[in-house]
Amino acid sequence: MLKLDFHPAGRHFLQIPGPSPVPDRILRAMSYPTIDHRGPEFAALGLAVLDGIKKVFKTTQPVVIYPASGTGAWEAALTNTLSPGDAVLMYETGHFATLWKRMAESLGLKPEFLGLPGVEGWRRGVQADMIEARLRADADHEIKAVCVVHNETSTGVTSDIAAVRRAIDAAGHPALFMVDTISGLACADYRHDEWGVDVTVSGSQKGLMLPPGISFNAVSRKALEASRAAKLPRAFWNWVEIVEMNRQGYWPYTPNTNLLYGLSEALDMILGEGLDNVFARHQRLAAACRAAVQAWGLETQCVDPAAHSPVLTGVVMPAGVDADAVRKLIYEHFDLSLGTGLGKVKGRMFRIGHLGDCNDLTLMAALAGCEMGLRLAGVPLRASGVGAAMDYLAQHESAPRLKAVA
Amino acid sequence: MLKLDFHPAGRHFLQIPGPSPVPDRILRAMSYPTIDHRGPEFAALGLAVLDGIKKVFKTTQPVVIYPASGTGAWEAALTNTLSPGDAVLMYETGHFATLWKRMAESLGLKPEFLGLPGVEGWRRGVQADMIEARLRADADHEIKAVCVVHNETSTGVTSDIAAVRRAIDAAGHPALFMVDTISGLACADYRHDEWGVDVTVSGSQKGLMLPPGISFNAVSRKALEASRAAKLPRAFWNWVEIVEMNRQGYWPYTPNTNLLYGLSEALDMILGEGLDNVFARHQRLAAACRAAVQAWGLETQCVDPAAHSPVLTGVVMPAGVDADAVRKLIYEHFDLSLGTGLGKVKGRMFRIGHLGDCNDLTLMAALAGCEMGLRLAGVPLRASGVGAAMDYLAQHESAPRLKAVA
Amino acid sequence: MLKLDFHPAGRHFLQIPGPSPVPDRILRAMSYPTIDHRGPEFAALGLAVLDGIKKVFKTTQPVVIYPASGTGAWEAALTNTLSPGDAVLMYETGHFATLWKRMAESLGLKPEFLGLPGVEGWRRGVQADMIEARLRADADHEIKAVCVVHNETSTGVTSDIAAVRRAIDAAGHPALFMVDTISGLACADYRHDEWGVDVTVSGSQKGLMLPPGISFNAVSRKALEASRAAKLPRAFWNWVEIVEMNRQGYWPYTPNTNLLYGLSEALDMILGEGLDNVFARHQRLAAACRAAVQAWGLETQCVDPAAHSPVLTGVVMPAGVDADAVRKLIYEHFDLSLGTGLGKVKGRMFRIGHLGDCNDLTLMAALAGCEMGLRLAGVPLRASGVGAAMDYLAQHESAPRLKAVA
Amino acid sequence: MLKLDFHPAGRHFLQIPGPSPVPDRILRAMSYPTIDHRGPEFAALGLAVLDGIKKVFKTTQPVVIYPASGTGAWEAALTNTLSPGDAVLMYETGHFATLWKRMAESLGLKPEFLGLPGVEGWRRGVQADMIEARLRADADHEIKAVCVVHNETSTGVTSDIAAVRRAIDAAGHPALFMVDTISGLACADYRHDEWGVDVTVSGSQKGLMLPPGISFNAVSRKALEASRAAKLPRAFWNWVEIVEMNRQGYWPYTPNTNLLYGLSEALDMILGEGLDNVFARHQRLAAACRAAVQAWGLETQCVDPAAHSPVLTGVVMPAGVDADAVRKLIYEHFDLSLGTGLGKVKGRMFRIGHLGDCNDLTLMAALAGCEMGLRLAGVPLRASGVGAAMDYLAQHESAPRLKAVA
Repeated sequence: MLKLDFHPAGRHFLQIPGPSPVPDRILRAMSYPTIDHRGPEFAALGLAVLDGIKKVFKTTQPVVIYPASGTGAWEAALTNTLSPGDAVLMYETGHFATLWKRMAESLGLKPEFLGLPGVEGWRRGVQADMIEARLRADADHEIKAVCVVHNETSTGVTSDIAAVRRAIDAAGHPALFMVDTISGLACADYRHDEWGVDVTVSGSQKGLMLPPGISFNAVSRKALEASRAAKLPRAFWNWVEIVEMNRQGYWPYTPNTNLLYGLSEALDMILGEGLDNVFARHQRLAAACRAAVQAWGLETQCVDPAAHSPVLTGVVMPAGVDADAVRKLIYEHFDLSLGTGLGKVKGRMFRIGHLGDCNDLTLMAALAGCEMGLRLAGVPLRASGVGAAMDYLAQHESAPRLKAVA
Repeated sequence: MLKLDFHPAGRHFLQIPGPSPVPDRILRAMSYPTIDHRGPEFAALGLAVLDGIKKVFKTTQPVVIYPASGTGAWEAALTNTLSPGDAVLMYETGHFATLWKRMAESLGLKPEFLGLPGVEGWRRGVQADMIEARLRADADHEIKAVCVVHNETSTGVTSDIAAVRRAIDAAGHPALFMVDTISGLACADYRHDEWGVDVTVSGSQKGLMLPPGISFNAVSRKALEASRAAKLPRAFWNWVEIVEMNRQGYWPYTPNTNLLYGLSEALDMILGEGLDNVFARHQRLAAACRAAVQAWGLETQCVDPAAHSPVLTGVVMPAGVDADAVRKLIYEHFDLSLGTGLGKVKGRMFRIGHLGDCNDLTLMAALAGCEMGLRLAGVPLRASGVGAAMDYLAQHESAPRLKAVA
Repeated sequence: MLKLDFHPAGRHFLQIPGPSPVPDRILRAMSYPTIDHRGPEFAALGLAVLDGIKKVFKTTQPVVIYPASGTGAWEAALTNTLSPGDAVLMYETGHFATLWKRMAESLGLKPEFLGLPGVEGWRRGVQADMIEARLRADADHEIKAVCVVHNETSTGVTSDIAAVRRAIDAAGHPALFMVDTISGLACADYRHDEWGVDVTVSGSQKGLMLPPGISFNAVSRKALEASRAAKLPRAFWNWVEIVEMNRQGYWPYTPNTNLLYGLSEALDMILGEGLDNVFARHQRLAAACRAAVQAWGLETQCVDPAAHSPVLTGVVMPAGVDADAVRKLIYEHFDLSLGTGLGKVKGRMFRIGHLGDCNDLTLMAALAGCEMGLRLAGVPLRASGVGAAMDYLAQHESAPRLKAVA
Repeated sequence: MLKLDFHPAGRHFLQIPGPSPVPDRILRAMSYPTIDHRGPEFAALGLAVLDGIKKVFKTTQPVVIYPASGTGAWEAALTNTLSPGDAVLMYETGHFATLWKRMAESLGLKPEFLGLPGVEGWRRGVQADMIEARLRADADHEIKAVCVVHNETSTGVTSDIAAVRRAIDAAGHPALFMVDTISGLACADYRHDEWGVDVTVSGSQKGLMLPPGISFNAVSRKALEASRAAKLPRAFWNWVEIVEMNRQGYWPYTPNTNLLYGLSEALDMILGEGLDNVFARHQRLAAACRAAVQAWGLETQCVDPAAHSPVLTGVVMPAGVDADAVRKLIYEHFDLSLGTGLGKVKGRMFRIGHLGDCNDLTLMAALAGCEMGLRLAGVPLRASGVGAAMDYLAQHESAPRLKAVA
């Protein structure tokens, strides 16, 4: 028998940028008994989560919930709207943008990959002017979609989605606008309708605090219309039948009921705290984390002050230090999981997640683990990052603590 | 806030043919803390479930685990192995076979649908001779795959997969052989390797006793080879990278960790009980259920004694009785969920699930609810089905009860 | 490592008259994180359960909640109110009344044990006229307390507490009136204030559907006054400091927080269903159970039609049949736990619990297990008890099913 | 409906000296279904926990497990062994020693309270020489028992139990030796047999990591013999019948099954980690905590370097600072619960618990919360205690992390 209780005494600190720690409330909700997915109670559940999730996407248009992980929702966005050989303009913010582009190739699309050159391109957000210029040059409107990542999980860089929308509009280009906010949703402000996004892709295991296994497409009217003409084969991902059956709270195939229980609870938690409070909490923790990195004398992966992610912070190691060796040491000594460097930055940086069900002291624990681990690894630190983070937190009062007892 | 605790006092009896009731052990396992899917503990979990699930499929070849529901695994089987326009021979055992065929059409394949005519065709299993004849006629080998359903969930009819294999061999036809045993796996004996199946499709929420959200493709060497030439676009479902990363216990994208915890526990339970004991338990309960239906003077949907499903029993209502009205009455009076009639048999029959975490007294509870409800609905019953089922169970001693205290 | 998942495939049916099956909702509530028992949230919890439990006792006077099992609450009732050597009038309804009397002796009291003679005395409730006569004879008021059991768990006989009150009043006797309703509370109607009970003793693991570990004393003003003069030593059980600290929602020593979470949930469930609905449900199930026993041609332990317990039914075996051998056979073949015969009726009867989180089909499962087991044990049965119970349930419509979806 | 999910986003840090945080493993174990406490599986559970708990007490003699909280076990120790009016020598280490003494008075015993004078007496452990002198003076052996507290939870001072044993022996006095290690067990080394303790009292909600609700008496042969002559009335607490029924794994009254499940899991965890590793972990965390207090320039409540508790650290506030106001501020800003000052030191100090399921980063989180809160409260701090604790932890390598993946 596999022993699933892996960790030694005390609580493991899971500070990777997703999956984020699943709160006990959500684990408990996931343990409600599975019910008949064609019965009346299920419809009540279905309608409730379909309604609540729209508030998180800030949309009044359909949100499709897939019983699949986030990578599937990438595929759904592409196959529902595009045809074999279609040109797609994608932007290289980092590793996940790169994976999405590879997927587009696998599906028979022709992605064009914009971006700033080299590793430095992974330290800034989407350059909207580059997109505008490229779209202006596409006089024949061969580009059918513009795809960007809102919060690049591999780097800790957040892009200005409204600016990309303005760029598309300025170019007067009819391309669909698709955004991956898998790790941004419910951490950073996101406005599907206001920003005129046609397909927003997201997942469960980040700001929504669920285990992996649910993913989303928020779909504009324009995207739904595009799906009628789109020729990429699709069945499981097909929006049409899902949206139709969702009107009654059902799905055309078996939904993953227990994760929907979790989603219902997550929506209660997030909307109960208030989206603005959730965003402010993430910004506050991220700022405290950056204060620590700065005090250590290390660089964050993100170099644009306007683009720092509220979700995670990428910490660049000094030349000659293997970031993964540092991560391993921290993991083994302090029972703290950090995110590895991915793709072009493998071994050069690690990532501290401070998303989802996180608060001041959990962040302090993570920073203490990093600081002790960096010292043990022999990385020279200029000053105590933990001290700097405490200074930041003590000086920036948090949103008033929710009062359960009133 | 949505109230998720739907049911009134006492336990709800979920006797639909899936999702089946999730045992407490599995719910508890699913509540282990989510861990880093790139960390060392995850690999131990991954390797353990990948190994264990092979035993259930009775294969030594790869089993691909998708973080998606069963419908996705249907799509995976087709897109990994076939090319646009390929002819596929499918067999109409019932509603789910029909849905798989529709999916094949949606994906741009050309399914040919064999089957006995009319509603009566849904009362028997796959006629292997029809498949043999059709394949013999396909001298040019235009048919690229033969697709059948092992246990047709909509009818309670189980097909003889070994006979289909023999039919293909007798015809000397090179088509791939694909089998859906979504509701059959871990309930009825299934032998991926021995029966020469190329792709076996299954899901989590039936015999494996998990919530929906995980699905499977067991893949033969021949199928893997076919995937190299197959031209249907695919990315999320692509076997190659998954099988490659599975060697180390990892997945190319975020797996749904908490359901894998559940799978690990389910495998402990099933392999601990012993597959043969599990199958015998299902056969025993199914026979007791049929004894009840016979005593009532009603017909089972399945009319071939050799093809009765150990998973569920379809109960045909007398002419003029709306099966769904009976189901609703039973649900409202006795807190018992039964399966609805689907497709061609909608309103004509209902389905009693006796799969997964089911035992003698749970079946008796379900049959008592049916019998009281049928009476309340005014359906004339010849004798007590409950009595007949008790006779059957008392006369057929079960496998010795597992002794935890030894 | 002890394997705690004892049972084989399928759900165990725990139909003993307590501990009753703990609903999932309560198990989930018990898993909320333990909090500081001196913090503000705890006070909110404490005040809520102290308020809610009064409604179940139908009292406006204090209810003391002990972090201890029910036997402790027996001791608390005696030690808070009495002095060494005090005479106490107790009534022998069965085994638990006998145990309470033995406890009184251990504590240095002088219990006098009234009752009808022999085993037959265990088949009827308290004879109020005997109590009245005895009290009338006690001209000097040497008897300091009258102690009776409301629902005798060992026999399935419920006594008329209001009649005992009338008897005490008719005798004009000042004795304290103490009632054990450990297994009656939240199953059968109980009215602490209206019936003028001075100390009501109860526990958690019966109608309240909690695990064992919490017990209660509902305390009248007269009892509190008596406690000032009472000389039996006491500390842990002392009401005074507890009642005082309870005003703020706290306890003088560490309360068992997680069981209080469960109690809070249980109160939500019971008061949400409505006490009258809860009582009616228990009566209905008990009547169906007795219909089964009658059809079998067996006797219930209770022979007074007015005294049948809604909580459990004692089933007397024909002469020569060892009830415990039958229980063992049922347990081993059908995974069903029944209550053993206790004390004077050991081996002569077994007990079917139908209390707490029980509904029609759970009872039917239990009766089916009994019927099959009795047959296997060779006990001659006149007719199908299962059939008779189904007839009863189908003919007596239940209270309308709670509608969660409105 | 009471909202039981009190806390805002992120995990609450419960760093009071008990109840300590209950690990998920134990919460899951507590949710196993309640079983028949008279059935065969229960006996397996009972025997397992009765055996395992002896290892933690380091005894081969009986350990009585009560379904009650720790205060009850104090009472059990006294009532089982003593008679009304017996003289008892108790030692005032702090608030809990005082409460135990008050209980002795309530029960009709005559405790004599030794101790160093004033508040300073609460800053040192038991002075064994004072006990020896007092016993030597008791030529007539009127003192029937010596009672001391091993780890005084109100102060963070641990006493040398072996030294008290030697003192009693040196005086040649036959008094029973009773020790309260409610908060010490499974945190600090404890040797019931080797130290010749007659009754050791403990509870569940500290080092054993369970919720409150179980308590213990480890009982020597001499104590069992004393219980035959002891005249204090007792029933619920009576050892004799419990010890007798425990031989078969049962209890004379309903045990709290679900907490015993938790105990079984706790024993697996503690004995799996190894008692010596558990103790070393507690010592290491306590030392790091004291390093922080020292760096802050504050005093610990304990002033004897040999007596610092591995369980908790009492932190004395500078004159003029209300410790409870600081606690409240920390609680409200940082979601961290600390222990209040009790009795003589109320308002003068607070207590940091670092017991049970605690590790390096949880302690660091707690210390960061304290440091930020002390600053916000205007308490002048000499240097960063967080920094000092990190230095300590980084320089003192922990016991090798348990490897689940081997």
